[in-house]
Amino acid sequence: MTLPKHVRIVEVGPRDGLQNEKQPIDAATKIALIERLADAGVSHIESGSFVNPKWVPQMAGSDEILSNIHRKNGVVYSALTPNLQGFGRAVLANTDEVAIFTAASESFTQKNINCSIAESIERFEPIMSEAKARGIKVRCYVSTALGCPYEGYVAPEKAAHVAKQLYDMGCYEISISDTTGVATPASTQRVLEECLKLIPLEHLAVHMHDTYGQALANILIALQMGISVVDSSVAGLGGCPYAKGASGNVATEDVVYMLNGMGIETGIDLDTLIQAGDSICTALGRDNGSKVARALLTKG
Amino acid sequence: MTLPKHVRIVEVGPRDGLQNEKQPIDAATKIALIERLADAGVSHIESGSFVNPKWVPQMAGSDEILSNIHRKNGVVYSALTPNLQGFGRAVLANTDEVAIFTAASESFTQKNINCSIAESIERFEPIMSEAKARGIKVRCYVSTALGCPYEGYVAPEKAAHVAKQLYDMGCYEISISDTTGVATPASTQRVLEECLKLIPLEHLAVHMHDTYGQALANILIALQMGISVVDSSVAGLGGCPYAKGASGNVATEDVVYMLNGMGIETGIDLDTLIQAGDSICTALGRDNGSKVARALLTKG
Repeated sequence: MTLPKHVRIVEVGPRDGLQNEKQPIDAATKIALIERLADAGVSHIESGSFVNPKWVPQMAGSDEILSNIHRKNGVVYSALTPNLQGFGRAVLANTDEVAIFTAASESFTQKNINCSIAESIERFEPIMSEAKARGIKVRCYVSTALGCPYEGYVAPEKAAHVAKQLYDMGCYEISISDTTGVATPASTQRVLEECLKLIPLEHLAVHMHDTYGQALANILIALQMGISVVDSSVAGLGGCPYAKGASGNVATEDVVYMLNGMGIETGIDLDTLIQAGDSICTALGRDNGSKVARALLTKG
Repeated sequence: MTLPKHVRIVEVGPRDGLQNEKQPIDAATKIALIERLADAGVSHIESGSFVNPKWVPQMAGSDEILSNIHRKNGVVYSALTPNLQGFGRAVLANTDEVAIFTAASESFTQKNINCSIAESIERFEPIMSEAKARGIKVRCYVSTALGCPYEGYVAPEKAAHVAKQLYDMGCYEISISDTTGVATPASTQRVLEECLKLIPLEHLAVHMHDTYGQALANILIALQMGISVVDSSVAGLGGCPYAKGASGNVATEDVVYMLNGMGIETGIDLDTLIQAGDSICTALGRDNGSKVARALLTKG
């Protein structure tokens, strides 16, 4: 067991979270959330998605948001860019870093982005070369790395192979994603073992959903394997599109509480983070998906 | 890491769970729950509490319940017995095993059972000798072993010392209990390390609450330390009396899902268990506190 001393939280609430919330959310509310997260000490905030608003209307104002955030020194404001057009918009909005995504199962890429895994990776080539030319770092998600809503089981070798291709293309960080939250500590360990055969530890991250309540246990195993980058969503923003009413992203507050207890630094102030999550939940009229927030807000 | 091959789940829903639910619940509903749990393969069910109904009205029908359950071979139907009077009632109702409880913090025993820890342990003497004479096994909970709602921090050595006294008195199993759910994997590991200095591994169990969402991660650490007995509550029955609206007991379904994924046997059929939890939630008109149940019931 070689627990990391410091963990970098990649906050995905304003993107992965809000894109799955039903209520329309104006740009000002999103900007307020992003700024509160930065005030809490979050150093990497995925702040929007430059997708076609026809497909993801919730992400429509990303240009405005990335352009108007009051930026804090040392904070990375990133965005998802599925194609070169989106990447162009991201550049215009002064996005610090971009993220791309594909999946480890063919059915998922077919149904979700209408192409094969190989095709999805090919499509990233122009983004990668533009990003390289401009010195913009590219992060990548490997969705369904621990299970697929259509295929079920996904071989860990397959997920690791996809991750390796993206690493070889120049992605500086590959986030191994449990899109449907079906993973347990055992399957998490297996897929990370396969990834570690191909990719150095410091280039791997985990992106765990809490749909089956397993996210923190899975993150714990990842930490024990030395992983030091964890994706999470404040207040557990974002449901699960594959199980109505079920949880999606693991709540940042719950991750930070665990890391605090384990003496692992994040640079995040839990109380300020809880306030940030509480504000957006109030704005959305939604229950807080963080158990830590619920316990501490009720107690206080 | 020496993961156990088999874990015994001690189902506390019908007792620890239902005693914290607000709605009045009739004996027939409780009996149906207990029988459904046994049908799912749960081999140890804490089925009632022989306390004064003046203090815990939710447990009033325990005599009737323990007397009328259709018993299944190989299943232990136990009950909480705080004093000799309760123990007598348990014997009359043919209770297989009894459980007693004290705490690791003085403020908690004072406010909760109106005596010191030492006094609470003294009071168990007559129960222990009656139980020994009758060949009835006694289990014990050490509440607030990982934190106290009044004192906050509880020294792990203190919790281990209380556990050791109960072990020396003849309790066959000591369940180290995180009453308020504040533990993280680090504090769980510390208290278990202290306990293991004084008590053999096979006599220790963990009783984790999920108030801060940490229960499964804490159970994972306990499993890695070799602990093979886990308390849990179907559908996460029972809230947290110290934080209104917050979660209490970890849901049995979520524990079993994790153990299944890790290849650790429990003898429990997850689907039947989910049905048992769904039935009692419907009867109580309450949301299901198990994320696994919510995900699978919505999906189905």
